[in-house]
This record gives sequence, structure tokens and C-alpha cells, in this order.
Amino acid sequence: MLITAVTKRWALVAATEATGFATSVIMCPAEAGIERLANPSETPDNRPGVYIQICNFKYEALGKQLLERIGQCILTAPTTSVFNGLYEAEKQFNIGSKLRFFGDGMESESQIAGRKVYKIPIMGGDFLNEVNIGAVDGIAGDKVFIFGDSQMNALTTAELTTAEVAVDAIAELEGTITPFPGGIVANGSEF
Amino acid sequence: MLITAVTKRWALVAATEATGFATSVIMCPAEAGIERLANPSETPDNRPGVYIQICNFKYEALGKQLLERIGQCILTAPTTSVFNGLYEAEKQFNIGSKLRFFGDGMESESQIAGRKVYKIPIMGGDFLNEVNIGAVDGIAGDKVFIFGDSQMNALTTAELTTAEVAVDAIAELEGTITPFPGGIVANGSEF
Amino acid sequence: MLITAVTKRWALVAATEATGFATSVIMCPAEAGIERLANPSETPDNRPGVYIQICNFKYEALGKQLLERIGQCILTAPTTSVFNGLYEAEKQFNIGSKLRFFGDGMESESQIAGRKVYKIPIMGGDFLNEVNIGAVDGIAGDKVFIFGDSQMNALTTAELTTAEVAVDAIAELEGTITPFPGGIVANGSEF
Amino acid sequence: MLITAVTKRWALVAATEATGFATSVIMCPAEAGIERLANPSETPDNRPGVYIQICNFKYEALGKQLLERIGQCILTAPTTSVFNGLYEAEKQFNIGSKLRFFGDGMESESQIAGRKVYKIPIMGGDFLNEVNIGAVDGIAGDKVFIFGDSQMNALTTAELTTAEVAVDAIAELEGTITPFPGGIVANGSEF
Repeated sequence: MLITAVTKRWALVAATEATGFATSVIMCPAEAGIERLANPSETPDNRPGVYIQICNFKYEALGKQLLERIGQCILTAPTTSVFNGLYEAEKQFNIGSKLRFFGDGMESESQIAGRKVYKIPIMGGDFLNEVNIGAVDGIAGDKVFIFGDSQMNALTTAELTTAEVAVDAIAELEGTITPFPGGIVANGSEF
Repeated sequence: MLITAVTKRWALVAATEATGFATSVIMCPAEAGIERLANPSETPDNRPGVYIQICNFKYEALGKQLLERIGQCILTAPTTSVFNGLYEAEKQFNIGSKLRFFGDGMESESQIAGRKVYKIPIMGGDFLNEVNIGAVDGIAGDKVFIFGDSQMNALTTAELTTAEVAVDAIAELEGTITPFPGGIVANGSEF
Repeated sequence: MLITAVTKRWALVAATEATGFATSVIMCPAEAGIERLANPSETPDNRPGVYIQICNFKYEALGKQLLERIGQCILTAPTTSVFNGLYEAEKQFNIGSKLRFFGDGMESESQIAGRKVYKIPIMGGDFLNEVNIGAVDGIAGDKVFIFGDSQMNALTTAELTTAEVAVDAIAELEGTITPFPGGIVANGSEF
Repeated sequence: MLITAVTKRWALVAATEATGFATSVIMCPAEAGIERLANPSETPDNRPGVYIQICNFKYEALGKQLLERIGQCILTAPTTSVFNGLYEAEKQFNIGSKLRFFGDGMESESQIAGRKVYKIPIMGGDFLNEVNIGAVDGIAGDKVFIFGDSQMNALTTAELTTAEVAVDAIAELEGTITPFPGGIVANGSEF
């Protein structure tokens, strides 16, 4: 989905909160991350934006997470709006019809750049959210392993710097996220 | 609790992930935030640290959140360790005895600066976590309202700047967190 | 000197510009750095602030640098004011009487929290600058050397992380700055 | 010119220092700013990089500034190298033949990705700098004016937010810099 706000900085604040506690679906309620920044010229309301991804195993859990993370982390963030980042996807969650209840009957339907949105009046102004949020299948768990050539603790910082460069490079790729903290995971999982 | 890491920056990365999706217990699994930075001289392993708070209505839900957020957002973050921030509190969660299972039998008990910790060998080195994490009662929901004197949208940015100064000031107070995105909430709740 | 602005963030933007190109007086026009943040409760205009230091070998060169860096990097930064950080010092530069010429005759003398300031009307509002900026003797060039135990290139990142922790710790000490980039210098000087 | 370093973060640290005290040639020794980030895949040493611009009225002053800012703010920054960002330009400054004296006779000529560089052994490893740094004519002083509709002070923060969005948008344009603090200037100049 696309989060827009009055500045890039405030869009990033909302995106960071909405993608937190989301490193691995093993014990987190979702895997999530920031995909890329969006220029004002490419967003429906011509404000700076941030694309985020929220991922889960099943649609039911995903729908619940979309509602909770938008309702608690984006609607509550100053000046934000939420738009569909996958409006051509077959699977669409009608999140808007649930979020609208925050408007207590004062909400209204509207259009912005050809997109159907709900306008929910809140203390900070109107919160706009596109009625549908789309979802597609994705692939989770691609890894780049970084090995040290002697004992682990001594090399941690050298490996960490290498990993940081890799995370920065992955951040440039469209369609990818690195959900672990700082994009790096310190430990493996068993299967 | 106290998160330490190889640098202040990496402690903050783990702290940000561990306190995400945590603006309000209404629909988030916890309310959480960064309380303050800790100098290396005041941490058990003499590394830079960050104190975070994780809050919930009941101890059962809190215990579950401590386990999940430490296990998924801090143990997975590069170079981190976790220490009890409230070791004089009456209520103590024995999180260590649950987290130790990540060690698959290779974990061991140890002491650091007089504190009982588990040492879990992971790919990035040893993850140290103090056996107990303490909890105390707190007060949630204190608010500073910022009003505009004309229509809302027009004044949003002036109010936002005022709020940013207030959040920076609250950040200086020991024992407080501001769990909403950037410390600011755009809307009120009904009771 | 103390730079205040509408938020901590904007005070830091001005402070960063004003302390740039200032690693070493060998070929830079000054040595400069950020000393510490100041809470709104301790600044004359009750706004967030940043204390910076600007250093030079001789008073004449220092006075010129104060005028140029305040006039070009702080007066030009949005919402800033400048106050004396050493008003009890014996040596005082009357920078205000030179800066006031930016006001083109429209400037005025005023008082704020008992301090004598000039008020210069500029496009963004009034720029306040305290008439005097004080100076004291200081000591330059204390170093913490970080050695590697094998060839240099291989260890650079581990050393760098150690240095980063040291710089963060020095940042907590009142009265100190670390003028090199990120507080770290990659090379030595000859004498 | 292009600054590379072990991570994007350290390239930015050097770039920020090297472009400081450089808002306006009226009283600063140069106008300078960060142009854009460079991916490892596009840099001669396959490390993350940052393109910066340093501008001046005349070639003589520019050559002096290149030498001083590279020698004091980039060579001194951890892990950096410097490459020509305009190697097809007609005007080339042979900065390398001057910087090489920092090597005290231990420096050597080398090639990297077809570019002629000097390798200067310093404490942190080898500092690589391309022999030539190119220069072209540019246009300074394009402005976007942001007006308020009532008295200045009251509107400062709303204007500031608008300006911040504009600066973010300009940052996306190749070949441009915004040398004032945070890209915004609070006051005009007379002619």
C-alpha cells in the first residue's frame, strides 16, 4: 500500500510504525517492510509517499493485519492518507468499509485521481483511505548469507558492514523488502 | 527492558522494530516506545543501549508480548543483548527460560555484572538475555491537546511543529514514552 | 554559541551547516562541531537549541569566522536565532554590530531573557542575534588512537565500529566536540 | 565529484562535512551540496557513493576549494575514496598531483576501472583519489519563493513544510543541489 503525508519525513514515520513488530511470521503477526519512496508526482494526492508491504501466510490473517496496522499506525499518524498499491491485483480487501466506522457516521465517499476513497473526519483533518487494498502472491525468505573466516564475535562488525551495503543495494530494487531489523538477521531458523 | 548492541545505532534499530505496531492496545498487541538512550558506562556489558517500555492491560498478554518481541525483534537483530530494566520490581517474568529453547540445548547460564543471563549461541555470535524481565504498574494515556484557531487542514503543519517540540521535550523525561507515530496522534478515541 | 530554532531538527540543520568544512585549522578556515543539544527550558527564547563550538588559533581569524558562519549558515537557515554561549567570558566579540547591517537600517535593539539582541527583519520573520559572542581558551587535538592487530584494510570496519562508540561517548561530555567527519579521523598529521 | 566509502552512511558523513560552510559565495569560500547517491554498481570501486558539487565564481578559487575540501574533509574521513564526477569535461583540475604530497613519498600511481588514481597510504588504509577532478559551467541562484498570506512569523511553520517538500522533490533531479541549510533560505539578498 501507499502511505502519503505532508512531507516524506512524516510518511516515513507512519511507515516505520506500521511495519514494526514484523520480522517473521513465526511469532510476529506479519512480515512487513518499507519498499520504496514515492515522489509527489506519482501519488494520487500529489504528496510525498512511501510504499510498504505487509505479508502473511493466509488471506484471512492478512486482512486482519491490514485493518489493524492501517487503523492503529497510519490513521493515527499525523497528516497521512492510504492508497492501494496493487489496484490491478485480483485479490482486493475492502478495508475501507471497515475503517469507515472510525468516522462514526460522519465519513463520506469521495474520489481522488479516479480512486474511490473514504474521507474520515478526525481531529487532525480528513483521513483519506482508498476503499480497496490489493494483494498478490509473493516469495518470502530469500537470503544472502555472510560468513566470517574465524570466530564469530571477532568478525561481527566486519560482517555487519558488508550486510549493511547489501541491505542498501536491495532497498534500490523495486518490489522487495528486508523485514528483519535494519534488514539483517543475526540468526537462522530450523526447519 | 534494556537493549544493548555494538553501537547506539544498532541498539536503536532493534528498539525501533521491537516497539513497532504498538500505538494503542485497542487494536495493537501492545503499547510500546523508546524511553531513553543508555551510556556504555551504565549497561551490564558496557555497550551502548536503549531502554524500551512494552505495556499492556494484563500480565498474561504482557508476558506473551515480551517473549514475542524479544524473540523476533531483538534476538534477530545484529549484535544485541537484552537486560532487565526493572530488576527491583516485584513482578518478574521469567522470559529467559522460554527464550533459551532457541538455543536447542546449546545454551548456557552465565553471569554478567552480577546478573543471571542465558547465553544462546546464534549465527551472529552469542545472544545474552537476562533471565528475568520486570514489570510495574504505569499510567497510560496522558495527553497534550494542540488546538488550532481556524479550520483544521490549514493549520495542520503549524500544530505539527508545536507537537514535535512537545514530543522532543517529553523524550527528555525519564520513565515516559510517546507510543503513537512520531509521538503524535492525529485523532481521538471515544469512550 | 547557542542556535535555537522552531524544532530541534531545524536547529541541527543550521548547526550542521555552520560547523561544516571545519575539521582542522591546517587547511580549513576553522575547527568546529556540535557540542550538545539544549532543552527549550534552558534557552533564552524557550525554543529547542544546539550549542556549537567554533575554534581557531587567533582571535582575529575567529572573529572573522564567527561573522561569516553566523551570517551565511545560521541567519540564512529557517527560523533560527543565535545566542551567546559564553557570556561570562572575558573575551567578547561584538558580532551583532556587524550582522546588523544585514537589516539595512530596519533592524532594532531588543532584550530577551535579559540578553541584549539585535532583531533583523528578514523574509522568514525576525532573526535575533545576541550582540556579543564570547570566547575562551581551549585545548585542541586530544586523540584516542584505535589500533588494529593485523593489516589495516581488513580491520577497518571493526575499528570503525569501536571508534563510533567512542565518538558517541565523547558526545555526552559537556564542553567537547569531535570536529573530524563523524568524529573520526582516518589519518595522522606530521609535526 | 564522487565520494565512495565502506557504506552509504560513511560516504554521506564525508559528503556532509565537505559541503558544509558553503551556502553562498557571498561570504562562504564555496557553494556546495549533495547531488545524489550512487549505487555500488555504478562506482569505480564498487562501493556505495555520493556525488557532491562544489561551485565557485572562478576556476582559481574553485581549484583551491577542491584541494582544501578533499584534503581536509574527505581524505580525513574513514574509508573514503574520491573520483572524478565530470571526467569528460574540458576543464580538469590536477588535484591528485597536489594531494599526493600527503603521502610523503610513499604514494603510488594506480588504475581502478580505467581511471588513473593516486594511492596514498594513511593510518586507516589506502586513500584513493583520481588524478583529475573536472569542472563545467553551471547556473546558480534559481529560486522557488514561498509566500505567506498573513504576517510572517505566524506562517513560518506552514511555509517551512511546503519548502521541505520542494527540497525533497529537487533532490530527485539529477544535476541539482540546494546549498542553503536544509535546502531552504530564510532571507533574500540585495543586488
